[in-house]
This record gives sequence, C-alpha cells and structure tokens, in this order.
Amino acid sequence: MKTVETVKELRSCLRPLRDRRIGLVPTMGYLHEGHVSLIRKAREECDVVVLSVFVNPLQFGPQEDFARYPRDLERDARIAEQAGVDFLFAPPVEEMYPQQPLTKVTVSQLTDRLCGASRPGHFDGVATVVAKLFHIVEPDRAYFGMKDAQQVAVVEQMVRDLHFPVTVVPCPTVREEDGLALSSRNVYLSAEERSQATVLSAGLREVAEKVKRGEMTLASQAIDYLKRRISSKPLARIDYVDVLAFPELTPVKELTGRRVIVAVAVRFGSTRLIDNIILHEKEDLPCSAR
Amino acid sequence: MKTVETVKELRSCLRPLRDRRIGLVPTMGYLHEGHVSLIRKAREECDVVVLSVFVNPLQFGPQEDFARYPRDLERDARIAEQAGVDFLFAPPVEEMYPQQPLTKVTVSQLTDRLCGASRPGHFDGVATVVAKLFHIVEPDRAYFGMKDAQQVAVVEQMVRDLHFPVTVVPCPTVREEDGLALSSRNVYLSAEERSQATVLSAGLREVAEKVKRGEMTLASQAIDYLKRRISSKPLARIDYVDVLAFPELTPVKELTGRRVIVAVAVRFGSTRLIDNIILHEKEDLPCSAR
Repeated sequence: MKTVETVKELRSCLRPLRDRRIGLVPTMGYLHEGHVSLIRKAREECDVVVLSVFVNPLQFGPQEDFARYPRDLERDARIAEQAGVDFLFAPPVEEMYPQQPLTKVTVSQLTDRLCGASRPGHFDGVATVVAKLFHIVEPDRAYFGMKDAQQVAVVEQMVRDLHFPVTVVPCPTVREEDGLALSSRNVYLSAEERSQATVLSAGLREVAEKVKRGEMTLASQAIDYLKRRISSKPLARIDYVDVLAFPELTPVKELTGRRVIVAVAVRFGSTRLIDNIILHEKEDLPCSAR
Repeated sequence: MKTVETVKELRSCLRPLRDRRIGLVPTMGYLHEGHVSLIRKAREECDVVVLSVFVNPLQFGPQEDFARYPRDLERDARIAEQAGVDFLFAPPVEEMYPQQPLTKVTVSQLTDRLCGASRPGHFDGVATVVAKLFHIVEPDRAYFGMKDAQQVAVVEQMVRDLHFPVTVVPCPTVREEDGLALSSRNVYLSAEERSQATVLSAGLREVAEKVKRGEMTLASQAIDYLKRRISSKPLARIDYVDVLAFPELTPVKELTGRRVIVAVAVRFGSTRLIDNIILHEKEDLPCSAR
C-alpha cells in the first residue's frame, strides 16, 4: 500500500492503471469495520482500490465537531493495508482547498429533510467533496455505507444528474453485537450513553418486525412508536424520526407497497448518532440484514 | 465525422480512444467563425475533437430567447465536418435532462457581476451543463471563446475548485471586418441595429488605444467614455458597462498595473449583445488582437 498526500502524486500513480477497474472508498478516517466492509467489497470488485481519508471541513457546520472529529492516520493506514487498499489518499486540507472555494455542488429536495434539515449546508459539503474526489481519482466504482442512507441518495442523484462516469455501490450498515451501528463518532459516547444508544437499532428492528407481522402499516405509527421508545432512555434527545420513500426521500403514509426508509437521529450529550432501516416492498427486511 | 445523439453511444465511441488526447468544443450550435476557430485550435492540439451542440435550457431565464435561439443542425454538421470535428454530439434535451434535475453547480462571487447580475441563474446553468459535458466526454482539453469572458472565468474557477482533470483553453474573440464580435445572436439584428452595433467593439478599441497612449488611466473614465459612446447610438440600450480585474472579476480603480476586463452588454431591440477587451499589465492590448 502506498500513502499519497497530493493530488498530483495520486494522479501520476493512477495514470498507468487507467485501463484497470478502479474502486474508491471515500471516508473521513478513524476506520472501523463498516469502512473495512466497503474496502473488502471494493477489493472483490476492482483491480485497484483507493481509500481516501479526509475530514472535510465543508460538510461541518460552525457549531459541529470538525475540530474534535477523531483522527489517527497511522492506525487507519494499518487497517487499510490489511483490508487490501492499494493507495491511501490522505490529503491535508490545503491540498483539497488550496484557495477559498467558490464552487459548490448542491442537490435540492433530497436534502430538505432528515440530516439535511438538521445540518444546513452539510450535503452541499458532501456533494462538493465527493465531486472533487471523483475528479481526482476518476474511479469506476465508489463505495458508500448505508448507515448514511441520505448521503447515498444524494450522491446517487448527483451522479445521475451530472452524468458522472462512476457507479455508486451502497453497502449494508455494519453493527456491533448489540445492534449499535458502527460510527467513528461512537468513541465520543460515555459508558452510560453507549448503553442507552442501542435503543436506535433496537427500535428500528422492532418496527421492521411489526411491519413484517402486519402489526404496523402506517408511517405515523412507526414514528410514534420510535419517539416513545427512544424517549424512554433518559439521555436521548431526539433530533428527528422520519419515514420517507427511498431513495426519493418524499413523504409517505404507508410503510408497505414501496421502498421506504425509517430514519432516526438522536443526541446523547454532545454526540449525534444516526441510524436507519430500509423496508422493502416485498420482504420488509432491513437492508443491512440482507 | 460521426454525429451522435446519446450519451451512451458517445461514450462507446470514445472508449477505444481514451489513450488519445481528446478535445471538447462545447457550443449551442448555429456555428460561426468563432466556433470554427475553437475547432481548429482543438484540431491542432488534440487527437480527437468532439463538438457538442446543445441549446441548454438551464442557462436561459424564463423571459429569455431559449425557444427562438437559432438552430440548424444540418448546417452545423457541414461546418463542423469541414473544420475537422470527429464526433458531433447533438443530444436532445431529454437525453441531457432525462429527469427533473436536482443537482446544480454554482460558482459564487465571480457570477455576482456583469452577465451574472443581468441574467440570474445563467451561470449555474452554464457551470452545470459544462460539468455534465465534461463527465460525458471526459476531454483532456476544452475550448471556450473569450467573447464570453465571464464564462471562461467561471469555468476555469469550477475546474480548479472541483479538480476537474481538464485544461480549459480560452481562445480569442473572432470579429467581423467592421469589428462586431461574432455571435449566433447577431442574426436577430435588423440592418439598422446591425449597423449601430459596431459601437461596442469600436468603443472598446478606442478605450484600449487611449489606455495605451496614457490618455486614460481610471476605470471610471473608461466606463463614462463607453456609456457616452454607446448612448450616442439611438437604438442602443445599455445593460452594463464595467471594468473589473480579470479573471477574479473584482472591482478595480485603475486600468493599468494588472490584468483588467472592460466589458459591455447592450440591447438592440430584443437582442442582447456582449463584448469585452482584456487590458494586459504590460501591453494593454486586447486579448483578441494577440
């Protein structure tokens, strides 16, 4: 594995490999098993695997955790190499933003709800940096985790609308034994918060089961159920609980009949966690369980 | 020359040519000698020349001339073939916008003035369609005329900010014998308007000469001179006359000491014409005269 810090060097590394299938796994680092699953998928499907590790200031709000977001490039490099990465691209901020950026990629509608509503400008930052990474790496395929389902929807929309020559590959959420979705932000949690945080995945799983058994059919029922369930944990403060068509992210009344996402964002202290399940028309099984 | 209407077909034509240098000349068609000069430049510098002809609805305002913009693909194809185009890409609107587009590329600051101020949303439409064409064609080099100098500045900024792997090649404005900058919109002009329209290039040339002779040093002098000069034509209605740093498009006081653009937009009846000169630090010569 080769670690590269500049756009120029990465491009010159990739130039002789342009006829091979290149896979990109864009991350903010502090790698966990979720990232590793993306790398493994890329390794299976591609000849060359590029992992980017870049904590993108553009996608953090002024009050958010950009400064304290966990970083450990040495650890990331060990994990990446073991998982089969060929090129670890870890640019400094000045390399990605050498001057005041004036150009923004914006995806409307899809970003009006969920994390887009809670984090104004977040998805502009995501779309913009993903566009930059796509232009730098020019991958054939790019791998994203479904824990950030809205991000997947936004990136897929951007790729379609702007005709990016890239296939987006969404990959299932990876979870701890007790159901907690893996996230680099989980390290922020105190023991007590960590213990109560399982309510997100537990509540979502319960909704999926109730839908499967025909006990729950309406979006409003799922939302009410999850709000009550999550509020039963004293440290939890709900940011949103919502049910939407996926990947259109438009309101729905019914939980069945089409693909829907049940998504939650909850704060524990200063840590904001998100999780979701996709209910499928046929199977009503969470995406990550498939 | 091969004419291609779909993204898929163009990509499959270009796939075996990916190791060659590909040049793109993006146009809205109704080709004139200005476009031909771009094609010739691309032909000189590249192995494969792609000309796109697409009247992009996204860059026209609701009250603008999208519907009546002149179109003649047969004529364009003859001119393109003769000028040395390999692939003429002429997609229908539904091919470029198969669904309601939600994604927009926006370049701020540079678009606050000149045509950006007169035509709200215009440069979002330009940046977005150029991004799409870059993703579809994946050119090494792309050719743009300096008649649309603000467009050149915006596209260059977008390319830098988003790390597009494309070199933008600005090419000099081509003019009629009497100085009128070539434009597909010139066909809209009546004989009387056409005759008075030479005031744009004449006024700009006079400013360049005065600056060269040291008779004019301030931006405000150039603006006053041009406003008076253009207003002397009874059919002319000034949209803007401005002097800015180029390519930053920030206000300047002096006409010398750095690269500046003197830019005008003037209506004759329902036809809006633009023209500009770039004054250089050293030579004070219009770019198009070099």
